[in-house]
Amino acid sequence: MSKIHSLVAAFALAGFSSVTWSQALPTKAPAPADNPTTTEKVSLGKMLFHDPRLSSSGTVSCASCHNTMLGGEDNRGGSVGVEGQVGGRSAPTVWNAAFNEVQFWDGRAPSLEAQAAGPVTNPIEMGMKSWGDVVARLKTIDGYQVAFEKAFGKNSISKDTATKAIAAYERTLITPNSPFDKYVKGNKSAMTEQQIRGMNKAVELGCTGCHSGPAFNGPGAFQKFPVISNGALQAKYKFKKDKGLAEVTGKKSDEYFWKVPTLRNVALTAPYFHNGKVKTLERAVKIMAKLQLGKDLSKAEVADIVAFLDALTGEFPKQEMPRLPASNGTTFN
Amino acid sequence: MSKIHSLVAAFALAGFSSVTWSQALPTKAPAPADNPTTTEKVSLGKMLFHDPRLSSSGTVSCASCHNTMLGGEDNRGGSVGVEGQVGGRSAPTVWNAAFNEVQFWDGRAPSLEAQAAGPVTNPIEMGMKSWGDVVARLKTIDGYQVAFEKAFGKNSISKDTATKAIAAYERTLITPNSPFDKYVKGNKSAMTEQQIRGMNKAVELGCTGCHSGPAFNGPGAFQKFPVISNGALQAKYKFKKDKGLAEVTGKKSDEYFWKVPTLRNVALTAPYFHNGKVKTLERAVKIMAKLQLGKDLSKAEVADIVAFLDALTGEFPKQEMPRLPASNGTTFN
Repeated sequence: MSKIHSLVAAFALAGFSSVTWSQALPTKAPAPADNPTTTEKVSLGKMLFHDPRLSSSGTVSCASCHNTMLGGEDNRGGSVGVEGQVGGRSAPTVWNAAFNEVQFWDGRAPSLEAQAAGPVTNPIEMGMKSWGDVVARLKTIDGYQVAFEKAFGKNSISKDTATKAIAAYERTLITPNSPFDKYVKGNKSAMTEQQIRGMNKAVELGCTGCHSGPAFNGPGAFQKFPVISNGALQAKYKFKKDKGLAEVTGKKSDEYFWKVPTLRNVALTAPYFHNGKVKTLERAVKIMAKLQLGKDLSKAEVADIVAFLDALTGEFPKQEMPRLPASNGTTFN
Repeated sequence: MSKIHSLVAAFALAGFSSVTWSQALPTKAPAPADNPTTTEKVSLGKMLFHDPRLSSSGTVSCASCHNTMLGGEDNRGGSVGVEGQVGGRSAPTVWNAAFNEVQFWDGRAPSLEAQAAGPVTNPIEMGMKSWGDVVARLKTIDGYQVAFEKAFGKNSISKDTATKAIAAYERTLITPNSPFDKYVKGNKSAMTEQQIRGMNKAVELGCTGCHSGPAFNGPGAFQKFPVISNGALQAKYKFKKDKGLAEVTGKKSDEYFWKVPTLRNVALTAPYFHNGKVKTLERAVKIMAKLQLGKDLSKAEVADIVAFLDALTGEFPKQEMPRLPASNGTTFN
């Protein structure tokens, strides 16, 4: 937890400094020293990410909730895991997740590798009893023996290698060249007048305090939500039912602290907020201004900011579907 | 039902004529006159096929059970639909389904178009209340308005166009160039000696009576299974619990009649039979010989035939993942 707390502290130090947005999205994400990206790992990770056999029922893959064919999530409020169970938080996008300092809505995972280990054994997500069971199942599939060998060497199927491969694949899920990126690189006609107006309004309001940097998710990795209490909005949307980071740490000081989500591709990821209770981006913008900044936005201001957020939709790289190796009849009991 | 019955009659006339296998898989499937294949339809159909929003819960797509990344099905006994419900039949492969004369295990659909309409509103599969609801939901997604317009013209979202697009996509799912195909085209070293031995044994046994033609699923589209009663196998595998075509027609004469499944890629589609009760291909071959032909195969004969069936695994064309258009917050209630 030390990393998380130092990041919270870093955020507190940074405060709400109003900066403008000027950074294009990098086209490559840095990999940790112990998991350098290789073609073989990415290829294996893509297979694992899309393979429903990583779930107890054989029906839920990472991509089921973090749909790479959509905006990297499922466009649902609560995601659906094994046996039709519905989770309490809305799936965050996997696109550009490589640029998050921490993962999960509550930021409890310090890396993509650590994140990848979680949902597989979560009883309402992918429902496997243990990673030992996952490894045993993968070992029944000959094609995985081969793919792991290529990526990590002989007899290498393990929780460590599987999560490293998934993370390596996720580091390739980057959407550059949004209208905003083209704009900051000098093509001043890449954004419309309304989008530029919306950007300037958002800067003026102070949205940059939390949503800055190339992925619009910093400088601090965490922020409190809601900052300002509002009885009517709370009654309607139940934002405070879930205490965020404090649900993990048990600390009063962590209550309602959340990972700051990226704004990249936010136009594609309705519904909104950690609990997915807000259906439209217009409503989400209005609520954020009210609860985080104490501002009441006009309809025109909301429309301008939404237009700007549309300019953060990037180019999704063409992806070839992975070929998943067949089960031989012993994969499921 | 007239088409189905004439096909059954055609099969009865054809009888168990022992022919050799000599036809390579075509690389294109014929399209019906009222649904010529176009790039725009295939592109739309690929999107719809992979879109879980065609199900009530937003979690089950056609590809969930007919997984194009796998052997065209889910490697499960019973497939899992909405709310974790498990169906009574094992999902047939979508690869090369274009070469089936009839669709579904019981052959009740005369075309891919008719088949595509079924699972979407089946309460234990995709669970939509009606196609009216499906159309209404698709209309909430702007990107689909555009994709349907490209494929079928303005304001064209309907059950008819959606199922036509899905069928057009499915006609592209063809796996040519298996070792068998190379062999019959003249490359005599494309199959191993064991595979050739297995092929000759299968011909000698009479497997060709039902599983001939380029897709190993003719000449008749239907066949009775099991032909021969066997108390022990019935007790173990409950093959006769499901009456096949008679479940649809109610006719005594249709009891236990099934669509003859393709043998293409059969090595990838464990477990086996309409109810998915048989885990391995070895066991499936032994059972087919016993129940359809009254033959007891030796271990070596089974191994040879399984080796031959391995030679029917084709080349899966590279497929680009479709980009699915985002929901705008009104897609789900």
